[in-house]
Amino acid sequence: MHTIDFALRAFVPGAQDSEFPLQNLPYGIFNTARAPRPRVGVAIGDQILDLAAAAQAGLLVSVSADALLQPTLNALAALGRARWTALRAELAALLQEGSPLATYPQATQLLVPQAEARMHLPFAIGGFTDFYASENHAYNCGCLFRDPANALPPNWKHIPIGYNGRASSVMLGGAPVVRPNGQLPGKEGPSWGPTQSLDFELEIGVFIGRDTELGQPLPVAQAQDAIFGVVLLNDWSAREVQRWEYAPLGPFQAKAFHTSISPWVVPLDALQPFRVALPPQQPTVLPYLQQAQRHSYDVQLSVSLQPGTADRATPISCSNLQHLYWSFEQLIAHHTGSGCNLRVGDLLGTGTISGTDHDALGCMLEMTRNGQEPLHLLTGEARRFLEDGDTLRFSAQAHQGGIRIGFGELCSTVAPAVAYPQG
Amino acid sequence: MHTIDFALRAFVPGAQDSEFPLQNLPYGIFNTARAPRPRVGVAIGDQILDLAAAAQAGLLVSVSADALLQPTLNALAALGRARWTALRAELAALLQEGSPLATYPQATQLLVPQAEARMHLPFAIGGFTDFYASENHAYNCGCLFRDPANALPPNWKHIPIGYNGRASSVMLGGAPVVRPNGQLPGKEGPSWGPTQSLDFELEIGVFIGRDTELGQPLPVAQAQDAIFGVVLLNDWSAREVQRWEYAPLGPFQAKAFHTSISPWVVPLDALQPFRVALPPQQPTVLPYLQQAQRHSYDVQLSVSLQPGTADRATPISCSNLQHLYWSFEQLIAHHTGSGCNLRVGDLLGTGTISGTDHDALGCMLEMTRNGQEPLHLLTGEARRFLEDGDTLRFSAQAHQGGIRIGFGELCSTVAPAVAYPQG
Repeated sequence: MHTIDFALRAFVPGAQDSEFPLQNLPYGIFNTARAPRPRVGVAIGDQILDLAAAAQAGLLVSVSADALLQPTLNALAALGRARWTALRAELAALLQEGSPLATYPQATQLLVPQAEARMHLPFAIGGFTDFYASENHAYNCGCLFRDPANALPPNWKHIPIGYNGRASSVMLGGAPVVRPNGQLPGKEGPSWGPTQSLDFELEIGVFIGRDTELGQPLPVAQAQDAIFGVVLLNDWSAREVQRWEYAPLGPFQAKAFHTSISPWVVPLDALQPFRVALPPQQPTVLPYLQQAQRHSYDVQLSVSLQPGTADRATPISCSNLQHLYWSFEQLIAHHTGSGCNLRVGDLLGTGTISGTDHDALGCMLEMTRNGQEPLHLLTGEARRFLEDGDTLRFSAQAHQGGIRIGFGELCSTVAPAVAYPQG
Repeated sequence: MHTIDFALRAFVPGAQDSEFPLQNLPYGIFNTARAPRPRVGVAIGDQILDLAAAAQAGLLVSVSADALLQPTLNALAALGRARWTALRAELAALLQEGSPLATYPQATQLLVPQAEARMHLPFAIGGFTDFYASENHAYNCGCLFRDPANALPPNWKHIPIGYNGRASSVMLGGAPVVRPNGQLPGKEGPSWGPTQSLDFELEIGVFIGRDTELGQPLPVAQAQDAIFGVVLLNDWSAREVQRWEYAPLGPFQAKAFHTSISPWVVPLDALQPFRVALPPQQPTVLPYLQQAQRHSYDVQLSVSLQPGTADRATPISCSNLQHLYWSFEQLIAHHTGSGCNLRVGDLLGTGTISGTDHDALGCMLEMTRNGQEPLHLLTGEARRFLEDGDTLRFSAQAHQGGIRIGFGELCSTVAPAVAYPQG
């Protein structure tokens, strides 16, 4: 772990007042019109430090330029935690006030304005697993589709429930989210057409930074070291499609059409100052899930919705990463407990993160009670589910002692369905 | 499509009497001690034609050596169906009796005995989707866990039910299948330990040979052209783990610990002479699933079980690939119907393929009625589920006019569980 002293400041103007101060240093893949090859960068203020160029200029010794002149973070992550820590320490030294880089003649070539860069999917994602780790969310869903007395499934407090999602359709935020067609249940049997209950799910995505061997579980005490970093994740969902298809093998096309993530991968190290203990679990979990100092992070998660017809967004949710029943480490311990192997670049979603308050719910299914109680926007419009042209913005920030660690924005707009089949 | 005339014969001795005659020509990835670099080969009799070497020797013009000197079939598949067809035609000409290759001085260097080769996973598998496409299997499972009147879930005849499986744990047959630990349900709550109901599932795996774009469904009429070829697939399952974990998000660790496939990818072209019409579907399916000339293939699927203590295998199942309710093309049309993208190297499993007869069931769950009625082996032993040391052998063959198209063998042995957590 490498936590950067909150007293230190980046030399980049404005960085300390932004969500990308010296204490964050998230990794991403970017390119520019002038240098079109996608490569590794780190966000600092409103700039990107071009790590590939910095390594080529001899400014980095912990990691070779080979691992940085890559279109994904997989090669960097595969170097392992010791190298991530060394690189983070080097970057903090390089970017702080008084660093020789501040007066380095080519510094301006190494720092690229974010406004001039195009971001890319940060990892080649081999596997995407989505969990269901927030108790409030699971309880609320259970109340809607069963009853409050039996809201949580019997296995829920024993197993960190999860399923394999579709990795191929994980996209960087910003791409239009086309309303999917699907089988819509009806009394006369299913019909085919655009979903009428398009929803978002507010999640955090965890990127795995090491390979494990088939048959070799990763114990809960070692799981944290396997995490490279975290992003915002929107698990777009078609609710009536999900309700009709999910028994007995789980959600499939209701969630396979699009999943969005934010471009900057925030190192877990940057979140360590924001650790919060998670409460004891009742009933006691099985030994392979028992974790000393079970924790999450005090990271505020916000969602706003802006109709295509309006120039004004309505804040619709303010949740927090600490609203998880299962820790990241427990998710990993369960995932590998059977011997299932993880690989560098695998993405684990937490599942929708909901708090107990009505303004802390992480999806419209919960907010509108499956469309029964419309959500009223500041523009005067109402929403049961998402409409074409709606823009969803997710953000995540941790605050402490004047320092703000942010995840950047995950922003996507809903596009109309395409007629299919033709004619 | 390129079907090779049944009157033609390969010059390789014994090939026409084997499961790899001139009319099959399955692709695989192999290496040898002398030439350790994994590369593309095609099985002919008990030999492998080294395609990379053949291309380098100027014997192939349809495909460059670059696409063949690769550790997976992804690059070859990505060239597209027109090139697969051209290559197949070239290979048939090259390997038939009277071909110049039969007397080519270096022919012996191009033909490698299968006994001297090591096979590798044929594709880098981005996504593994497992379906539930056999009605007999779905009905039998429904009878066991619900009742005969409500055996099929209400969605089953409308949706080709499937779920995302775990791609990272798809392994080549032959690797030991370690009995997984998992959460075992009990009256006093779950316990942790080795599954006591380890099962196999007899499936066919379909390898996808083209990328589709997100948001672009592949119509059922175009779906066949996206199939590169097929393999045997064993979807190992831990039944009590599955029963306890599967609601509401589907199977996860019960199936994530290991999936086995056979090494030779049989081109769909090789199966065209064995096409059989599938019966009309009632109720009528939605338009996006309606297919002219809905078909499967008359391919006999066999399973034998040999205990570790015995030198004799018992045939325990003889099913057939025609026992599918949903065609391959319908699976693909549904998979992409939401706009979900497919990628070269994606693997789609059919789900367990069971016939109606008791000796045509595709898993032990069905054969033993969830362990209630033990299976009696020729060795005098009985099995409710699989035991350590048991060897499962799958094979698949189509016969016609003296020609036998085989898939090779998928053979794996169950290894004891590993103690976890330690101590």
